[in-house]
Amino acid sequence: MATTVALDAMSGDLGPREAVLAAVSSLQEHPELSLILVGDTPILRQHLSDCPPYDRSRLSIAHAADVINMDDKPSVALRSKRASSMRIALEQVSLGAAQACISCGNTGALMALGRFLLKTFPGIDRPAIITRLPTESGFTYMLDLGANVDCTGDHLYQFAAMGAAMVEALHQLPSPRIRLLNVGSEEMKGNEQVRLAARLIKHNEALNYQGFIEGSELFSGVCELIVCDGFVGNIALKTSEGVGRMLQHNLQQIATSSWYTRLASLLLKPYIEKLLHSGDPDRYNGASLLGLQGIVIKSHGQSDSKRIQQAIRQAMAEAKNNVPTLLNEHLEQLLI
Amino acid sequence: MATTVALDAMSGDLGPREAVLAAVSSLQEHPELSLILVGDTPILRQHLSDCPPYDRSRLSIAHAADVINMDDKPSVALRSKRASSMRIALEQVSLGAAQACISCGNTGALMALGRFLLKTFPGIDRPAIITRLPTESGFTYMLDLGANVDCTGDHLYQFAAMGAAMVEALHQLPSPRIRLLNVGSEEMKGNEQVRLAARLIKHNEALNYQGFIEGSELFSGVCELIVCDGFVGNIALKTSEGVGRMLQHNLQQIATSSWYTRLASLLLKPYIEKLLHSGDPDRYNGASLLGLQGIVIKSHGQSDSKRIQQAIRQAMAEAKNNVPTLLNEHLEQLLI
Repeated sequence: MATTVALDAMSGDLGPREAVLAAVSSLQEHPELSLILVGDTPILRQHLSDCPPYDRSRLSIAHAADVINMDDKPSVALRSKRASSMRIALEQVSLGAAQACISCGNTGALMALGRFLLKTFPGIDRPAIITRLPTESGFTYMLDLGANVDCTGDHLYQFAAMGAAMVEALHQLPSPRIRLLNVGSEEMKGNEQVRLAARLIKHNEALNYQGFIEGSELFSGVCELIVCDGFVGNIALKTSEGVGRMLQHNLQQIATSSWYTRLASLLLKPYIEKLLHSGDPDRYNGASLLGLQGIVIKSHGQSDSKRIQQAIRQAMAEAKNNVPTLLNEHLEQLLI
Repeated sequence: MATTVALDAMSGDLGPREAVLAAVSSLQEHPELSLILVGDTPILRQHLSDCPPYDRSRLSIAHAADVINMDDKPSVALRSKRASSMRIALEQVSLGAAQACISCGNTGALMALGRFLLKTFPGIDRPAIITRLPTESGFTYMLDLGANVDCTGDHLYQFAAMGAAMVEALHQLPSPRIRLLNVGSEEMKGNEQVRLAARLIKHNEALNYQGFIEGSELFSGVCELIVCDGFVGNIALKTSEGVGRMLQHNLQQIATSSWYTRLASLLLKPYIEKLLHSGDPDRYNGASLLGLQGIVIKSHGQSDSKRIQQAIRQAMAEAKNNVPTLLNEHLEQLLI
């Protein structure tokens, strides 16, 4: 299926070169892909001229004179920077020129512009960031990962409904098991928001609610969807990255402590690297801003070309599976 | 220095035997320690009779007819179960019979009874759970880890002051570096509570505030104190346990995948086990309920005798360093 993706090439921390490299590699990888690179035309042309040959009929440039910075407030993104690459990338989707867009930029701005240009689905107040995490037995999805730092019980309930709809649409997995992240497993545990959300989700028979989940069980594979507010989700996800980093540091110290450990480490090196990265959510780069009437992928701010390529794959998977249409249908049933 | 510790022997998930074993081993380990075992006298005597010989002059039993269950509400602990082992252990401290007490029981109940019997320090609204975490370069302390699921900016500010005072008192480390856990490092990031707390801590010149910290930096060793609300802290800590558990699971799969990896894994086994446990906060079992006018150690609900022994060490270290007195002095200066 021919798919067009708009890529905000200017908002990442590592500069437009990474986006251009990812674009050219992705065109080779996917013969059915067309790309709209959004950004400063002369700069993008310059980087493209350094690339190996590619199919020019499948790549176009949409000029954007401005860039949203990481510390720009959402209000600036909405009101002052009308020609930003992020906004123009989103407009490609709202105008129907692309089926999906990707940005490595400021999450708050992407959320505000996304809501303004694409609107949320009926029944959904706020979009949430969702990504796939590795578990002992496969994978689980988790949302929100940082779009909403304050959530009511009702918001968490909406996240559960739209997360479940996405897992169903993307994996043809009916009734994914849903759990709410909390500080304990007993019903009385947690704050008011979480307890209210538990009641709401439980009450909806179309949702397969399995109770609370604690941080220690996040990667155990007991469910396909974990729901939490964006503050907690962001910190839980980044903490897991932090643990991986510390283990890597300590492993290096062990490996250099004697000839004996150096040898054994050398033998096991590829396995251990794979092991340490198995807990790294970054290999699933490309979180979705879920709840908008269009596909918006939030790529990591520090994304290099490999990570952006991964985000493009995610955008294509969602477009191919028609996630927004299915989401809308599911949500209509789930949130009657 | 002679120290008496009261040990609630009944509230742990694994039963009183673990507490009794820990008591007898600890008496051997610390010649200056006396213990008051709190619980059902016949049961405790029975378990003691199965133990190797110990110095009976340093162990006494305080009878408690009741036990607080893990799902008892704090109100039940306060009003109905007046003869609970947890309450009587705390009373040993409030009456001056012990310098510290330890419980593996229900956190909410311990918090409510602790506030009622021992009172918080002037200027402190709520106690918080603090523990020591390993980092790449040493250790850091983190609070709150689950005593308070809803916190205002003012509470977080009080946690910063009392956490700093504890690190100073316990490690003779003046002006520990303080960071607030948040979803980003820029000033505009986070929820209202965190931003208010940042202003309050920054404004107090006696506190060495270093800004926000993200989850990915928790174990990097950039500060000696991390402040957060109990909901987020609990989930961050347990998530780090969960990552360790998943890596261990994956490692076992690698180790059994071929003769080659089996051999190399065997060679590296002790190192890798040490490595995986280096990220495990449990080896620092014995979190303190900080802010009360007395030493209260919260041991893990699933504590075995080794973990309870570790909690006893923590209680003794705090008693030896006179943490409550120093905390009171520091807080008077910090919270003028």
